[in-house]
Amino acid sequence: MIKVSVIYPSSPSVHFDHDYYRTRHLPLIKSSMGAGLKYYAIDKGLSGGTADTPATYVAACHLMCDSMEAYQSSFGPHAGEIRGDIRNFTDVTPIVQISEVVVENSTKG
Amino acid sequence: MIKVSVIYPSSPSVHFDHDYYRTRHLPLIKSSMGAGLKYYAIDKGLSGGTADTPATYVAACHLMCDSMEAYQSSFGPHAGEIRGDIRNFTDVTPIVQISEVVVENSTKG
Repeated sequence: MIKVSVIYPSSPSVHFDHDYYRTRHLPLIKSSMGAGLKYYAIDKGLSGGTADTPATYVAACHLMCDSMEAYQSSFGPHAGEIRGDIRNFTDVTPIVQISEVVVENSTKG
Repeated sequence: MIKVSVIYPSSPSVHFDHDYYRTRHLPLIKSSMGAGLKYYAIDKGLSGGTADTPATYVAACHLMCDSMEAYQSSFGPHAGEIRGDIRNFTDVTPIVQISEVVVENSTKG
């Protein structure tokens, strides 16, 4: 399984509408990708490693897919529309990273 | 729930022993934190947003805890030992980010 992480760097003046991200943007990705997306996760940045340090990233989502090919074939045709929606919730350009999921959940062995 | 992400930036000359990370370092964290750790996940960087671009991060782990307090009280007493083990698998200094888990798994509602 692979994880496509879309990670939004933070800054003191960052604009990010977490509500739109959760209720509109990720559902748009889900409906666009269909069965190519196994599931997604959403993070909201709270802090650095201790509560008194700033978060490096304001938010992130993680798109779980069976393979790189499953991601490309389901996301690719909708990439323009999905990327065009970013301006509706933030002024940040995200980092995109594709990872191999070595351990999805350690309690599941 | 919170997610403590420990993220290792990549570089052309990066050293990272993924096998040690999976078989030694994360089990050390798990045994140190005990019940304070719900579960963990491990990522291995493959690429950027497309297969022909380099990964921004060589690896990451995500420690899932019920609360910031649960993390601090279970990780804190072992922080020195755990951080001291990093030199055994990489020369990279990680980014640590604490996030609120807004959506853990979209298929679970």
